[in-house]
Order: sequence, then C-alpha cells, then structure tokens
Amino acid sequence: MNNFVFQNPTEVVFGQGGVKEQLPDLLDHYGDTVLLAYGGGSIKRNGVYDEVMGILKDKGKTVVEFSGIMPNPTYEKVQEGAKLARDNHVDLILAVGGGSVSDCCKAVSAQARLDEDLWTFEHEKHGMPTDFIPLGTIVTVFGTGSEMNSGAVITHEEKKIKGPVYGAQADFAFLDPDYTMSVPMKQVISGAFDTLSHAMETYFGKPDQNNLSDDMNEAVQRSVIQNIRTLLTDPKNYNARSELAWASAMAENGLLKIGKVTDFQCHMIEHQLGAYTNCNHGAGLAVIHPVLYRHLVNDNTKKFANWAVEVWGIEPKEDELQTAFAGIDALADFIREIGMPSTLEELGIPEDTDLKAIADSTTLTAGCARKLSADEIFEILQECR
Amino acid sequence: MNNFVFQNPTEVVFGQGGVKEQLPDLLDHYGDTVLLAYGGGSIKRNGVYDEVMGILKDKGKTVVEFSGIMPNPTYEKVQEGAKLARDNHVDLILAVGGGSVSDCCKAVSAQARLDEDLWTFEHEKHGMPTDFIPLGTIVTVFGTGSEMNSGAVITHEEKKIKGPVYGAQADFAFLDPDYTMSVPMKQVISGAFDTLSHAMETYFGKPDQNNLSDDMNEAVQRSVIQNIRTLLTDPKNYNARSELAWASAMAENGLLKIGKVTDFQCHMIEHQLGAYTNCNHGAGLAVIHPVLYRHLVNDNTKKFANWAVEVWGIEPKEDELQTAFAGIDALADFIREIGMPSTLEELGIPEDTDLKAIADSTTLTAGCARKLSADEIFEILQECR
Repeated sequence: MNNFVFQNPTEVVFGQGGVKEQLPDLLDHYGDTVLLAYGGGSIKRNGVYDEVMGILKDKGKTVVEFSGIMPNPTYEKVQEGAKLARDNHVDLILAVGGGSVSDCCKAVSAQARLDEDLWTFEHEKHGMPTDFIPLGTIVTVFGTGSEMNSGAVITHEEKKIKGPVYGAQADFAFLDPDYTMSVPMKQVISGAFDTLSHAMETYFGKPDQNNLSDDMNEAVQRSVIQNIRTLLTDPKNYNARSELAWASAMAENGLLKIGKVTDFQCHMIEHQLGAYTNCNHGAGLAVIHPVLYRHLVNDNTKKFANWAVEVWGIEPKEDELQTAFAGIDALADFIREIGMPSTLEELGIPEDTDLKAIADSTTLTAGCARKLSADEIFEILQECR
Repeated sequence: MNNFVFQNPTEVVFGQGGVKEQLPDLLDHYGDTVLLAYGGGSIKRNGVYDEVMGILKDKGKTVVEFSGIMPNPTYEKVQEGAKLARDNHVDLILAVGGGSVSDCCKAVSAQARLDEDLWTFEHEKHGMPTDFIPLGTIVTVFGTGSEMNSGAVITHEEKKIKGPVYGAQADFAFLDPDYTMSVPMKQVISGAFDTLSHAMETYFGKPDQNNLSDDMNEAVQRSVIQNIRTLLTDPKNYNARSELAWASAMAENGLLKIGKVTDFQCHMIEHQLGAYTNCNHGAGLAVIHPVLYRHLVNDNTKKFANWAVEVWGIEPKEDELQTAFAGIDALADFIREIGMPSTLEELGIPEDTDLKAIADSTTLTAGCARKLSADEIFEILQECR
C-alpha cells in the first residue's frame, strides 16, 4: 500500500431531525454573527429556511443572509460572499443546500480571511490558505460529497475555467435524508451519479492491485446503483435516500482514496464542459464516462474486467477484454435506465459548442490507465455527440 | 439507516518511514515533557526505541519513561502511569507498541487530569472524562484498532473485571507496517483475528438489513482473511502487512458501526475469560466465536447465510440454515488453518478454571440475534472445552 496521511475532523450529524436536536448546542461554540448561505430559494419552499432561521433567532444570533448561490457557483459570487462576511465580521458561515452552496462557502471562508485574491494565491502562487471563518453545513442535496472535505469547484467565468479551490473544511455537517424528499428526482439521481463517478474515478486510480480501499469502493458503487434503482420504483424510500446520502460523503471523505493516486480525468473534462456550457454536473459525467472508458479499456483491461464482475455482476467471459467491455456496456445501460443523458445532444449542449476549446482547456491527469492528450479528449468529446 | 453522529479527528500517518519523516514536526505542537510509554522492551530490540528516542532528544524534549506495560494492561499500571505523568507535568504521552500500550495510555491521559478515581468515575458514577493529556501513538502491533478511537480495555485485577475505560483519543497515530516485521507471526495473526472479530461483532449488530456499512464490513473481513493467508506463505509481504494494518484501524474507527447498534458479546465473554486467566485476547476470541455463533444461528439465519456467501464464498444451499452453518464451519476451519486454538485446552486454560464465575461476571449485550443469559454463556464456555 502507498504511504498516506489521513485526517478528517468534520463532525457528521446524520439522520432525521438532527438539525432541530443538535444545531442549537453546536451554535454555542461560535460567536454571534452567522452568515446564512443558500441557493435559489428552494429552502424557503420546503421549510428548511424557517427551521434554521428559527433556531438562529432562538439562540440570539445576528443573521446575515447570503442567497442566490447558483449551480456551478462563480468566482464572482465567492467575492460577493467574502465581502459580506468581512463587512459584517461574521463568526460562522452556515451553508444550507447542496454542493454548490457548500463549495461556494468554503471559498468564501478562505477569501474573507485572505488579503489577496484567492484564485491567484492558489492557482498562480500555489499557496494554500490556512485561516478560515468557521463553516458548518446543512446538506439538502447529496452527491458532491462536499460535506466532508475542503475542496471546492468554482467557475471563474472571466477565465472560462471551472476548477478547484481549497477552503475551509466544515466543522460540522448535518446530513438529513428527509431534506431530499422535496428535491426533484432528476436532481437526486444526478447527485447520486456524481457519487458513483467519484467512486469510479478513485477506483481506477493507481495502484490497480486489489486492496481494501478498492474493495470498499466496490461496496460503495454497488450500494449507489442498488439504491438509485430502489428510488426509481419507490421514490420516498427513506432508507435508500439515507444510504445514498452516506455514500455521497463516503466517496469523497478521503477514505476510498487511501493508498491510491486518484484519476478524476472524467471530472476534469466535465468541468470544462461546464465552464463553457453551464451544464448539469452529474449529467455531464454520465455522457462522458462510457466514452472515456472505451478509450481506456485496452490499457488496463484487468481492472476494468474486475470492476465489471464485482460492481456490475457480469459473468466473467473467456476473454478478459470482453468482460471489461461488458462492464462499460452495463454502465451505459444503467445511465439510460435511470433516465440520464447519453449524448451531448440529450444533455442540451448546442451543436456549435467549441469542443476543441473545451478539450484544450481541460487539465490533464495521470490517467486511470494512461495519460490522455488534449487531442484525444477532443476525440472523446466528439464521440459524445 | 439509523441516525448517528460521527467524528474521528485522529491524524493517521501511514507507511514506511513515517515516524522519521513526520514525528519531528508534529512534536513542535506540544510542550517539552514527553512520557514515552512502551511494553516489555521489544521496541529496544527492534530499533524503534532508539529511533524515537533519537528524535525526542533532537527536538530537545525531556523524556520520562513509562515501561513494562503488560498485555491485558492492569488498572494498577494505569495508576502508576498517571502518577508519573502528574509528578513530571507531562505535556504529551507517546505510546509506542500495540493495543495494550495504547489502551493503558488512553486511561493514563484521563486519570492524570482527574482528581478522583477514574474507574469509579466511569463505572459507578457513569461520568465521561473530558480533560486529557494529549496522546500520540506509534503502533508496532496491529489488531485492536485502538489507534483511532478513545476506548481502552483495562483489567481491574482486584475487581476481577476486564472492562472498558474511556480516555483520550490520539491526536496522531503512526501506522508503519514495517514495524511488524519483527513481531512473532503468532502475535501478528492473533491481532489480525481480533480485527476480524471486531468486524464480525459489528456486522451482526442491528439493523440486519443490507446497508453500506455492512457491505464495507464484508470487504474488510474478506481483506483480513485473504491477507492472513498471504502472510502464512509469504511472511515478509509488506503489502499484506499494510492491508492488515489499515484494516485494523478501519474496523474500529467507527465507520463500520455507522447506523448500527453493535453486538460485541464475544468480546465481553473473552474479556472475562481474560480477567480470570490472562489469556491472549485474539486467541480467546478464536475459541469462542464459532461456538457462540452456533448458539445464535437459528435466531438470525438470513444474516448468517448472507455472511457465509459474501465473506466465506459459500455457494448458497437450498436450505438457508445449511448455508449459514457452512459459513460458521468455514470460520472454524479458518481458525485451524491459521494455527489458532479451537478449544480452551488449546488456549492453555487450566481445567479447574471457574467458567461459571466467568459467565456470571460477563456483561450481557443486546446480542447479534438474541440476548444471551449468563446461563447460556456458561453453556457456551463449557462447549469451548
């Protein structure tokens, strides 16, 4: 096993009613001014806003609202939040929403305490921020796994880059699967597919020998697949929603990555597709994954074949490559089965989108089997049409 | 999924050479006086003592030695350590060894900062200590999983109870599989069996429906079984040793217990067997597990059958109970295969040991399938002869 350092201090409060029961006591550990951050207002319709605001008021907190955080949160929005936080001497940021809200707030927590431009500091000077406004999250949509790590994905519109920004890791995270009951099923499934993608991108990292991280990873993948299927026939199933919620955190809390160098090439491609088209993240991944894997299957056939058997239940065929391809076919079939797009057209990407520019601006990774070139990424994107 | 709260702040530094590379910097976070705790002196023979002492001296630390911590560490030893720590105003306890050293130091870290008797405080007044001397561990024998939690198992000789004591959770834990190369194979395997036991005791907790925690648990169990087998034919295999080291931490860092009420009845029985006979912990568990499970298989046949298929690779038989029994037989066969004892006699327990007293003093748990009585535990112990 490769050497590693692992630490994950976030306190996870999981399950129905957790916010009501445990948020009041947690708030005692922080100062008076709370930045309440959220997205487009769905938390006002489903009652979460009233619940959280009621608790904050009961505790005598001064609440500063930071609303309108969009999917694919922009760097401009980060600056807006950082100014709000600084101007109001905020003691705690409370992010209520999905990964976009949480990601935006991670960056806000760092930018508010940093005297220079955060993007320049991280991307050009290769600095890592160390001072943050404390952050807590209340997750209402699952999939990004943002709740148990310090990484954020932010769209820098001016630079046309959707890229990583490191900020605060949440001190605490409330994961209440009940909050997802009012989220459109399409979004629930898109989030769950993001979880599956995180697990796959980690699984196909290196080393590719069997190890405990990959064995647990297979368990996460099987669980996600099974529980998405359960929700399709029984949408209100609390248990399936709770398994998906916990799988989301597990796939990105660092444990599956232990001893591994991860790949995330599919995410890198999707990020630039998102930077150019603002497409839905999970849906973008669904389009790219099978095409990408057909490009790579010859370079690590054994691992793909193992995945086909262990995750997709494929009967091993005489030819390992056939087994591997059967796994990729099973993934593609699953994507159609759960109503996700299989082509750029189904994803709603305009025909005149500059796929070459997307490919050329994609960050190249070590690759799960082999390092791709920008040219091959362009080919992959063309095959996604 | 049941509601849960999860937090695990220990920083794990895993792999070859970690102590040399990262201990010096970590020591900067603590004051000058370090209590260096270890067992019977094996760390002096294998070079770990010299390595750690060299680093402590280089950093200008004042070192107070606390040696001779025995397997099944006693409450008397805890008091000795607590007095040493108090008298010398220790700033950091550094536990170098296996679970016994780590467990003893957890209790020391709490007792040194508590004005009253720790055992009385926890066991009679049901208090939980909140003030600790900071603790770091350097693990040289794996299995107890003590490195990533705050629980200790201490033998109170006067009371004839081997029971839980809660103390500090380590701030940091060095897990270097290389350190196990000089440990006798019997002890390595006994530790690995303890890991398997932790996983099984958690797996058979409630709820017994399939869930992500149990799916990951099966992965841990399969990994332990496979890697013990690898070591039997290739004792110096670093990769197998590293997988066993990480599985040890994973089985007891709380993640497999998420959403579950655990059982640990086998541990409770073994603890009292240990309190009366000072037997080896892992070996005691090996004797009890199959006998215990034959008593319980009728009460949760489905779960036992599932375990037989997923962990032991049993082909499902027409009759679920037969499948379940085949799993227990596989466990018993495995115990013999890896050279662990199957009977109290093989464990070296004297014939005149008072099994009735052991059963009567065993803490009864909720039970993985049904709550046992002291009488049935007595029966089980008699069947272990």
